Amino acid sequence: MIIQLKKDLPIKDVDFLTATITGFGYQITPVSTQFGHYLIGIGSRNFDIRKIGHLPGIQDIHMVSDDYKLVSKKWKVKPTKIDLGDDIAIQDGEMAIMAGPCSIESEEQIVNVINHLKQSGISLMRGGVFKPRSSPYAFRGLGLDGLKLWHQLAREAGIKIVTEVMQVSQIAEMYDYVDIFQVGARNTQNFNLLDELGKVDKAVLIKRGISGTIEELLQSAEYVFSGGNEKIILCERGIRTYERASRNTLDLNAIPILKAKSHLPVVVDPSHGIGIREYVPQMALSGVMSGADGIIYETHENPDKAYSDGQQTLNFDQSSLLADQIRKTFALRKTFQLL
Amino acid sequence: MIIQLKKDLPIKDVDFLTATITGFGYQITPVSTQFGHYLIGIGSRNFDIRKIGHLPGIQDIHMVSDDYKLVSKKWKVKPTKIDLGDDIAIQDGEMAIMAGPCSIESEEQIVNVINHLKQSGISLMRGGVFKPRSSPYAFRGLGLDGLKLWHQLAREAGIKIVTEVMQVSQIAEMYDYVDIFQVGARNTQNFNLLDELGKVDKAVLIKRGISGTIEELLQSAEYVFSGGNEKIILCERGIRTYERASRNTLDLNAIPILKAKSHLPVVVDPSHGIGIREYVPQMALSGVMSGADGIIYETHENPDKAYSDGQQTLNFDQSSLLADQIRKTFALRKTFQLL
Amino acid sequence: MIIQLKKDLPIKDVDFLTATITGFGYQITPVSTQFGHYLIGIGSRNFDIRKIGHLPGIQDIHMVSDDYKLVSKKWKVKPTKIDLGDDIAIQDGEMAIMAGPCSIESEEQIVNVINHLKQSGISLMRGGVFKPRSSPYAFRGLGLDGLKLWHQLAREAGIKIVTEVMQVSQIAEMYDYVDIFQVGARNTQNFNLLDELGKVDKAVLIKRGISGTIEELLQSAEYVFSGGNEKIILCERGIRTYERASRNTLDLNAIPILKAKSHLPVVVDPSHGIGIREYVPQMALSGVMSGADGIIYETHENPDKAYSDGQQTLNFDQSSLLADQIRKTFALRKTFQLL
Amino acid sequence: MIIQLKKDLPIKDVDFLTATITGFGYQITPVSTQFGHYLIGIGSRNFDIRKIGHLPGIQDIHMVSDDYKLVSKKWKVKPTKIDLGDDIAIQDGEMAIMAGPCSIESEEQIVNVINHLKQSGISLMRGGVFKPRSSPYAFRGLGLDGLKLWHQLAREAGIKIVTEVMQVSQIAEMYDYVDIFQVGARNTQNFNLLDELGKVDKAVLIKRGISGTIEELLQSAEYVFSGGNEKIILCERGIRTYERASRNTLDLNAIPILKAKSHLPVVVDPSHGIGIREYVPQMALSGVMSGADGIIYETHENPDKAYSDGQQTLNFDQSSLLADQIRKTFALRKTFQLL
Repeated sequence: MIIQLKKDLPIKDVDFLTATITGFGYQITPVSTQFGHYLIGIGSRNFDIRKIGHLPGIQDIHMVSDDYKLVSKKWKVKPTKIDLGDDIAIQDGEMAIMAGPCSIESEEQIVNVINHLKQSGISLMRGGVFKPRSSPYAFRGLGLDGLKLWHQLAREAGIKIVTEVMQVSQIAEMYDYVDIFQVGARNTQNFNLLDELGKVDKAVLIKRGISGTIEELLQSAEYVFSGGNEKIILCERGIRTYERASRNTLDLNAIPILKAKSHLPVVVDPSHGIGIREYVPQMALSGVMSGADGIIYETHENPDKAYSDGQQTLNFDQSSLLADQIRKTFALRKTFQLL
Repeated sequence: MIIQLKKDLPIKDVDFLTATITGFGYQITPVSTQFGHYLIGIGSRNFDIRKIGHLPGIQDIHMVSDDYKLVSKKWKVKPTKIDLGDDIAIQDGEMAIMAGPCSIESEEQIVNVINHLKQSGISLMRGGVFKPRSSPYAFRGLGLDGLKLWHQLAREAGIKIVTEVMQVSQIAEMYDYVDIFQVGARNTQNFNLLDELGKVDKAVLIKRGISGTIEELLQSAEYVFSGGNEKIILCERGIRTYERASRNTLDLNAIPILKAKSHLPVVVDPSHGIGIREYVPQMALSGVMSGADGIIYETHENPDKAYSDGQQTLNFDQSSLLADQIRKTFALRKTFQLL
Repeated sequence: MIIQLKKDLPIKDVDFLTATITGFGYQITPVSTQFGHYLIGIGSRNFDIRKIGHLPGIQDIHMVSDDYKLVSKKWKVKPTKIDLGDDIAIQDGEMAIMAGPCSIESEEQIVNVINHLKQSGISLMRGGVFKPRSSPYAFRGLGLDGLKLWHQLAREAGIKIVTEVMQVSQIAEMYDYVDIFQVGARNTQNFNLLDELGKVDKAVLIKRGISGTIEELLQSAEYVFSGGNEKIILCERGIRTYERASRNTLDLNAIPILKAKSHLPVVVDPSHGIGIREYVPQMALSGVMSGADGIIYETHENPDKAYSDGQQTLNFDQSSLLADQIRKTFALRKTFQLL
Repeated sequence: MIIQLKKDLPIKDVDFLTATITGFGYQITPVSTQFGHYLIGIGSRNFDIRKIGHLPGIQDIHMVSDDYKLVSKKWKVKPTKIDLGDDIAIQDGEMAIMAGPCSIESEEQIVNVINHLKQSGISLMRGGVFKPRSSPYAFRGLGLDGLKLWHQLAREAGIKIVTEVMQVSQIAEMYDYVDIFQVGARNTQNFNLLDELGKVDKAVLIKRGISGTIEELLQSAEYVFSGGNEKIILCERGIRTYERASRNTLDLNAIPILKAKSHLPVVVDPSHGIGIREYVPQMALSGVMSGADGIIYETHENPDKAYSDGQQTLNFDQSSLLADQIRKTFALRKTFQLL
């Protein structure tokens, strides 16, 4: 049960409501976000809401039977728009393109990518400064200094930054330099990290876990929302299966399912999803047709010299061509009556 | 190693070639299909083909390092066209649409579907008369009588028939009434069935196994080709993974990979691929953008009353709309320079 | 619903019962096996069996809510004993050991294996004469001639034969030379083959599918039972997962689950289950502790020269040692109060 | 390449060695643990170690081709013993039993469990005070206060504590009250957490990831070792597959493989591995036969009233019986010549 509270409700009224509903056998979690105040009640699924509907301070009550509540479309039918400022947004009905290298490597590299994005009409740049690596001996990214440099160059160019945060202590130090905090596939169930990202007022892009279910992805998003942050983007990036001809198995089934279950925008990462440069465009365009609100892919001036993920990274010519094809495919999709 | 032989080569020349190449340490399998004669040599990968290139009777020699040989693009770069007659074909550069019910149920149902297909410009009808069912107590299809009835009605309407063959003994009795023999996902590695389908001159559509790899699908096709039948279509229909929000996990990564590895046409089955009616169109269109040469989906006049698979079956209005969207999406894809 | 019929019931009484129960909304499938006659009713789960319990000819009625019926422990609590004659049996409370090569290769090989088995006190020999191979160019077994030779030598030695049948047409020709027909992991859902194996009076060992569920394995067994053959053995042989450090993932969880759900004996194949010779013994002994009624493993005089599967095959010394360890482990397990 | 350095080597000698080996094209990572100093060289696999073997300060050089180095058995053949003091250890050749509730719930519960463990001769107690939960609204554990209380009671009883640490900031606050830090299956690739656990002098038990490979588990252990902590225990707890009849698929294949690849002790968690109380004992005993050095399972005075995981938790009678069976099975295993 989600109880939306009226604005500026005095604490004592919230306490009264909490006590009353607890009295009906519910466990109550209060949630305050940038945009509203809620009481989440976990308990009976057959409760007669008329018993509390008349109480003062309640704006609306929704029975949501899913295990996730606040991210469900069952109470918030209108799609969530992630407004990044400067007329840049991620939302249903639009097509966001996010591109950039796997790792931020140098000032020269950043400048080259930014120039490419500007020429291609792309205003969101992805890149890693903290890199999760399975081996402790591999390159782990330029860190905070790299992020600051990147931020300065991106700001001048009007480009927004999407980058991965790996642990709680990085949130505060990264905060001023990031537009979208990315939670990587190995951290989708790092609940402490999700809790803390609920406390900041920046967008959070959550990648599906390496073998995460669709349900688990939504529950991870519920952590961020219930922590206080409604600005959440979901990302399908391929799952682990027995098939080894591709790096991961891009599960585009997840897109219409996530869009139907949740009001949050959903993006597709074809680079990790297939892991083979030559086939990234086809998977990106498939992602558009599956109903995604955005595509996030890897590009580098010279993919074969990239510090990481070169085998799945497009060069700038391929990237420009793909961005154009994404837009044309999205324009066609908009003419269809798809769910 | 694939050795293409000249036409009408006398048996004694074939024997001489076989003996000579065997002498170089190769195990030779002779293959004769509708379209040519080949010797398949399994042995060293570092053989100097100049040692045999001059021998009489050889048209061409190809070193193919894949475990599958004849279905590989490494020797036959030109895509294979499956010509079904009456100007109906399945081939690279075109978009084949195959639609119909999961099970053939009655004369009335067949007539309804055929009328719908005609109105929608679809000339390939799918349907099952022998149904593999996990429970022995479930409906197993109308059998041969149903097929004969269907065939008569389809012929009159100029519609081609795609239907599943479950065992060797059915091939002969079904032969006159089938245009494309379908091998189901539970039979992808029924090697006896594949062997026997190699001996007929009808197209064979092989579905990927329930948890089959891309490599195994190609090896199953190799059985049919090496058995003597080059008319093969590959079909992605979703694989089994841990995810249960969808019936299967449609692996569209497989499309560009199969198209790159093989000269055979590749089609996508979005109905089994996601298993949820509302999302079949998105997955069909994603399949088109992934590079498929055809889409095969389930439609029924009244899906909720279908004998089987109703939950993933489109009604006729949805089907007409989808066929139109498939064509528009394919038309757009053709303007792109994709692999 | 399973209705056990009295012995020698006249056809007209069966017809009367069928009509009566059909009248209550059930779909009836009559089943006649070596050991009894049954009517299987598929329909309401809340039927009051007192409505039919008084009818003449009924020995017993069992409501079985599982999708599989006759193989369920819910109606037949007593474990099924597979009696192969000559005091050789597979059953709960005993430990059957089946060993032998992957492929039957030659008379000399057969003689060597038989001598080894005799010395080790093993009376069941496994081996393949029809080999399912993913490549059409690989060795496919010695076929029927090999089986006849093997049979002659085994009979003289008092050894029983377990070997794979790949297709319907082989059943009749193999019948006289086989003690246990094995259904391979690629044929677990070859329903025609299962149907036909229901018609013979020889034991059938069904391997779990390459990515088959426990439920599907039981339903495949239901095909054989409902076809008329109660002599069924279930076999866990590893499933396909993302892990590649082993050939398959041996799922020993399946053993106690299968034993709890079904009255059929269950055996474990550690050779395919891990696929690495050095670790086959540990997995065999784990299988014993998991509750298996038998172990089936591969042995060969010279594994490195075996035609197939040498990497997972034990030599005779290892095999003798393992057989002894299996017996000691089983003896210890019998002293425990395990389910 | 692993270079073991002599004790008390002056910094300038380390610098000289680093510079010299770097000059041969290696990237050097210095590692200092409780027990030794190492230089890890990543570079050519065909280096002639005689070029550096004579240099002063080197105790030994090992070429290790695995992606993990320090946890490999290729350089350290002798199994690692995890000495917890008070004659309690986890090591090859012994059988460690760790038991306790999923969640620490109350003083009464702790006392009951401790009494049970004492009576059963078990000296390692598992339990959670920080609980990772997929839903933000579920019970998340008693936290640090619960740990302090538990620690006081356990110390008095001579019981060692195994409990999960979820984030970096908890390490310091938990340090004084923990004997073994457990890294949960959702944190196996939380590299920051692993890095920090490398800096403490307490044992770390790393659970295999929910869909982690054996290789990834070893690489996660490499993080802890290269961070400075050699006291590492590996734990198989089941992996995620398509099978739903059990909670996870316990992969006992992993045990002999891990034991062969690494010198670290390996334990099995049958409770999470199958997730069904009735079958936990069979899986525990299978784990013993697979070669494990320990078993970790869940027990509670009244499993049906446990705050979490009750369905897979043994009551005290079952636990006592199992502990006895584990010891008997291990005693038998020790008489076998297994790898």
